[in-house]
Amino acid sequence: MKAASRPFHLAHSPVANHDHQEEPLNMSCSADLAPHLGNVSAAEYICNKFTDSDLAINNTYLLFSAYFVFMMQCGFAMLCAGAVRKKNTNNIMLVNVMDAVAGAISYYLFGFAFAFGQPSNKFIGKHFFALKDIPSESTYLDYSNFLYQWAFAIAAAGIALGSLAERTRFSACLIYSIFFTGFVYPVLSHWYWSPYGWANPYRAPGALLFSSGVIDFAGSGVVHMAGGIAGFWGALIEGPRRGRFFDGRIYYKPKGHNPALLLLGTFMLWFGWYGFNPGSFLIINKTYGSSGSFYGQWSAISRTAVTTTLSGTAAGLTMIIAKKILTGAWGNLADICNGILGGFAAITSGCSVVEPWAAIICGIVSALVLIWLNMLSERFGFDDPLEAAQLYGGCGTWGLLFTSLFAKKKFVNEVYGERPGGRPYGLYMGGGGKLFAAHFVAVFVNIGWVSATMAPLFLILKYLNLLRVSEEEEISDMNWSRFGGSAYPLDDDGIELF
Amino acid sequence: MKAASRPFHLAHSPVANHDHQEEPLNMSCSADLAPHLGNVSAAEYICNKFTDSDLAINNTYLLFSAYFVFMMQCGFAMLCAGAVRKKNTNNIMLVNVMDAVAGAISYYLFGFAFAFGQPSNKFIGKHFFALKDIPSESTYLDYSNFLYQWAFAIAAAGIALGSLAERTRFSACLIYSIFFTGFVYPVLSHWYWSPYGWANPYRAPGALLFSSGVIDFAGSGVVHMAGGIAGFWGALIEGPRRGRFFDGRIYYKPKGHNPALLLLGTFMLWFGWYGFNPGSFLIINKTYGSSGSFYGQWSAISRTAVTTTLSGTAAGLTMIIAKKILTGAWGNLADICNGILGGFAAITSGCSVVEPWAAIICGIVSALVLIWLNMLSERFGFDDPLEAAQLYGGCGTWGLLFTSLFAKKKFVNEVYGERPGGRPYGLYMGGGGKLFAAHFVAVFVNIGWVSATMAPLFLILKYLNLLRVSEEEEISDMNWSRFGGSAYPLDDDGIELF
Amino acid sequence: MKAASRPFHLAHSPVANHDHQEEPLNMSCSADLAPHLGNVSAAEYICNKFTDSDLAINNTYLLFSAYFVFMMQCGFAMLCAGAVRKKNTNNIMLVNVMDAVAGAISYYLFGFAFAFGQPSNKFIGKHFFALKDIPSESTYLDYSNFLYQWAFAIAAAGIALGSLAERTRFSACLIYSIFFTGFVYPVLSHWYWSPYGWANPYRAPGALLFSSGVIDFAGSGVVHMAGGIAGFWGALIEGPRRGRFFDGRIYYKPKGHNPALLLLGTFMLWFGWYGFNPGSFLIINKTYGSSGSFYGQWSAISRTAVTTTLSGTAAGLTMIIAKKILTGAWGNLADICNGILGGFAAITSGCSVVEPWAAIICGIVSALVLIWLNMLSERFGFDDPLEAAQLYGGCGTWGLLFTSLFAKKKFVNEVYGERPGGRPYGLYMGGGGKLFAAHFVAVFVNIGWVSATMAPLFLILKYLNLLRVSEEEEISDMNWSRFGGSAYPLDDDGIELF
Repeated sequence: MKAASRPFHLAHSPVANHDHQEEPLNMSCSADLAPHLGNVSAAEYICNKFTDSDLAINNTYLLFSAYFVFMMQCGFAMLCAGAVRKKNTNNIMLVNVMDAVAGAISYYLFGFAFAFGQPSNKFIGKHFFALKDIPSESTYLDYSNFLYQWAFAIAAAGIALGSLAERTRFSACLIYSIFFTGFVYPVLSHWYWSPYGWANPYRAPGALLFSSGVIDFAGSGVVHMAGGIAGFWGALIEGPRRGRFFDGRIYYKPKGHNPALLLLGTFMLWFGWYGFNPGSFLIINKTYGSSGSFYGQWSAISRTAVTTTLSGTAAGLTMIIAKKILTGAWGNLADICNGILGGFAAITSGCSVVEPWAAIICGIVSALVLIWLNMLSERFGFDDPLEAAQLYGGCGTWGLLFTSLFAKKKFVNEVYGERPGGRPYGLYMGGGGKLFAAHFVAVFVNIGWVSATMAPLFLILKYLNLLRVSEEEEISDMNWSRFGGSAYPLDDDGIELF
Repeated sequence: MKAASRPFHLAHSPVANHDHQEEPLNMSCSADLAPHLGNVSAAEYICNKFTDSDLAINNTYLLFSAYFVFMMQCGFAMLCAGAVRKKNTNNIMLVNVMDAVAGAISYYLFGFAFAFGQPSNKFIGKHFFALKDIPSESTYLDYSNFLYQWAFAIAAAGIALGSLAERTRFSACLIYSIFFTGFVYPVLSHWYWSPYGWANPYRAPGALLFSSGVIDFAGSGVVHMAGGIAGFWGALIEGPRRGRFFDGRIYYKPKGHNPALLLLGTFMLWFGWYGFNPGSFLIINKTYGSSGSFYGQWSAISRTAVTTTLSGTAAGLTMIIAKKILTGAWGNLADICNGILGGFAAITSGCSVVEPWAAIICGIVSALVLIWLNMLSERFGFDDPLEAAQLYGGCGTWGLLFTSLFAKKKFVNEVYGERPGGRPYGLYMGGGGKLFAAHFVAVFVNIGWVSATMAPLFLILKYLNLLRVSEEEEISDMNWSRFGGSAYPLDDDGIELF
Repeated sequence: MKAASRPFHLAHSPVANHDHQEEPLNMSCSADLAPHLGNVSAAEYICNKFTDSDLAINNTYLLFSAYFVFMMQCGFAMLCAGAVRKKNTNNIMLVNVMDAVAGAISYYLFGFAFAFGQPSNKFIGKHFFALKDIPSESTYLDYSNFLYQWAFAIAAAGIALGSLAERTRFSACLIYSIFFTGFVYPVLSHWYWSPYGWANPYRAPGALLFSSGVIDFAGSGVVHMAGGIAGFWGALIEGPRRGRFFDGRIYYKPKGHNPALLLLGTFMLWFGWYGFNPGSFLIINKTYGSSGSFYGQWSAISRTAVTTTLSGTAAGLTMIIAKKILTGAWGNLADICNGILGGFAAITSGCSVVEPWAAIICGIVSALVLIWLNMLSERFGFDDPLEAAQLYGGCGTWGLLFTSLFAKKKFVNEVYGERPGGRPYGLYMGGGGKLFAAHFVAVFVNIGWVSATMAPLFLILKYLNLLRVSEEEEISDMNWSRFGGSAYPLDDDGIELF
């Protein structure tokens, strides 16, 4: 049998720890078929052709999922452009596109190696720098895996750029982006998604955190919390935009200048999330139970698309109703868009292991979490122009906890593999407190790691006077002052946008 | 043989009436292979693995098609935003996103059950509420089918929101959307697409309407006519926008404020239509005739993408030329975009069963239908801000009739399965008048059903004074008055959009 | 064995010259399996089912790639809309959508036949007019191939529309578009991509240009150079926009009016490029070496997505840094977007046959090429509103040469098939000068062919006074003058956009 007739694996963890691995589908194809057929060479021939088909299907699935996730970068850019004042659109978009281009190079050179290099210690990867030894048959990593993970990395970094909007220097954003995409995020993803990571639920039974590991399937914690916390420190250390608060009270609340871009961005993020959550299975041709069944990983993937949809829409609907109750008006577009995105950020952790009805609960609560955190941040004079800290940080945290409450036994066993003695699952579903304990730890570890790396960075940038633009620049017009705008004559509309 | 080695089915009808079902590909795999191989267990092993691959391919195909159809909601939002006056953009987008979120919850709770619940009477489904018993092996319905049908439902509901633009209350839109997505549309789709529906062409030969059933493959009637007729009643009962007509003559024709958004929306709808029409096959791995042939359902799917493209582009080109002839100018962008969309709406019914050359005829005529209906509605003082009633209602109706004229025998038999005694096909193609008769009935049934449900709803809303905003609100600025806008200080540009 | 168990082929060349064809995967399936199995009929049954799966997978892959490429038309429209002055947005978008609709009809009627008609002479195809005889089993061409190639054709034609922006008559654009999409581009693609083309690297060993053929995998030359050179002649013959230069010096540089549309267009083109470059493999289920290996065409496809990403992002990053060095400011959005697109245009030729590190070199150099050509065109008073001639013409040319320097032996043999005596590969990689010679010829042939056809066309249009709008129209407002705008009353915002 060819070496490639090897395990198919799951969920950001292309190959599990070699200590233990449940027997997968294709591993045994020719070993199983040969006795039936009474013919080893024919069995190998047939099984090899199945392997070819599997690889073609699975790479098709993963590549198009990666393209969808990439489109989220465009979604972020449009969302940010619509949500800031007109004078700051050019700057925020420039920062966003810089994040994508710089992130590609840094993730290629070392980010991917830190995150998925194998073998590794439990902390950080140290192979596959500049894609050396990729494709790697023994770890089941191909170029498509790199592309998929890169799209995740720039999405994660993009979150905090919203928190920094309207007052941060371009060079500070560039430094932040490279540091976060190339180091902070890869380390975190290594812990949860690399087969060698200490919190990975695919590890050998004896090596599992609380006999469970952390079920952060597509990254409410790894991606959204991380981005949100980074944004929190950035926004806190920079301080609010000028005029936002005065004497401890809200003085001025700038509004986004373009609702159409805001909605466009939201829909593009929604679209991209179908690559983000269902795509995190990485492979689609995998059976659960016996071969030939109607129900398999394709069903779990489809269910993941449904839970994602229901959480986001339930959150959006909750936001409409809550705003109507709270303010008497039917809410505004920005609130609803943020509500929807909060519902997506929250379900990202548990999307693969919860029932559709539970996803609706997830969404409803995440809308309330977002409303509450927004009230809280206004009270404490915290200013995040895109509510990114509240939305991704807050709803991401809720999402991690939600999973530990509502993960269903059957789904956990299918997606993460059964373990001798059974796996912990959702507390509310009767699965005991171990999963909850693991997720509780994860919440604190995430906060700790991102805070310990990002707060010092922003403080240093502030100390070096690299963080914030000057008062004149902030008040006048960030579009031109630092971007060579003044070198150009005015447009015939009297407007010179770039 | 595993139960899942069951029939693969087609076109919005995941499983056909149990009275009759042509023998499909996989059903017979192990039964066929075992005698060749002289070995039942090896045949079953191999056939089960083919089933796994098939399910992985087909679900990949269906899921990405569903994501594309979802993106049409974004397309509608951008199209509407661009086509209304600036002051109304916020409102129309809010209504559009509300349609998507409320529609997800209502379609999950009961819409999908009404549409595809099995077994059922001929009128309405009554299983699968809140996705109970899904995935359902016996009906071949998985979560991916729900997602695909949900994306259709919100698209259908989105059409009439264009007709209601610029003068309707948010709460009226919300009520309309839930009623249409959750009841009116599901019942209609049950009739044509559920295996138990009275008009479904997959039913047993004896149970077929006019020995044929209605070939509304992806829904010129079920989706576009339904949405268009709902919009017609809404626009008619509300009456035209203030100032649109005076003394029976055109007084003022408001223009859309943003052609870029209009074109963006059109292209996104075009993009999404590739999920809508070719995706309606639901599965791609199905042979026509013998296994191992170059020509199969993948060819029919590709042909469907081509007929869709040719009808839309022929309609767009016709619109350019017709406007040049009629007005002397090269037409304007809105006309061309609407022409393209009309061509798509018309081909949606017959896309899978006509030749590419026929699709060009379909497109040319639908452009002329749209021009004629627009002239007619101006004469009669009917005001639909997005021409949605004319476009989707008119071109959708033409599309249903077109199919009954140009459906090709070979394609009908491949896509819908041969029947003893033969199937009726297009009148112009020599297939007799039965298909035409069935489609004639369908046109009247669609008009009747949607009118009987939607006209009373809009009349009740009008009677309760819930339908239309006040004169002051309509004249001044729908963006703010009902959406809490006035609570905010002005933007630094003096504009407060949300 | 069924006739469809035939060769799978590569890269825009669905079937290779019949003189020679390496033995492909499926051809030999039943021939290979039967002896193992000692049973011909069982082997045929199994192999036929593999063929079905292959066709389903490959068509899924190709269709979604085609949809992505189509979305580039939307990307171009948004990019152009954002990059011109507000008064010209409507016109440029109208021209862009006209390109898509007219191109569909002309490519259906004869463009596809000219490009891929088989058998043919070496110059132009002469079969498959109006899709006659498609699907064609013997040439392995299905409807999906037509759709994919049509999306390429309109993308190619769209490039020069940017060069013609802000001063060209609609009718001139229409004539250009039909001529280019229907004749100039198809002939060029025939030469490089049809199995009968004189420069195709899939031809029989004896018939290969310089024993090699030209490796223009996804069309840096066929698409981007061709569009860029067409744009060059158009812009040169029309002359610069009024006020752009005065007395040989830059007088006025109009700025695009909307950076958000510009970035949206760039991201959509980026997204679409994942259909353009990796999609050019056409099929994904193909082994390299033995069946059952982890590494196969799916890996090469994934690598192509990675090289594409790295070239574009390296070019964007280079542009940021270069502009900072040259001007002291952090560059502007338009520069960075154009840099990214230049990187994509350049890698399009060699994307499938170079290492990721080489793609970064490709991107860096293409940014420098673009900067240099922009300086050159300002010096010589050449005005291309979108820099399309410099970008697609210049970076496309660099891309063709880059491939002949950096193509890797292993990849060339895998993607294009080994040849007795070996294939030439990149000069820098030790592959000798033959590939470089072939690409050097290709550069001159492309320039010659497009110049010989397009320059006369634009000269004739100029002579007939059909090319450029009048001075009044250009200065005032192209949106209305020719598009019937004046027939309408003003919008309530006092703006009447369409």
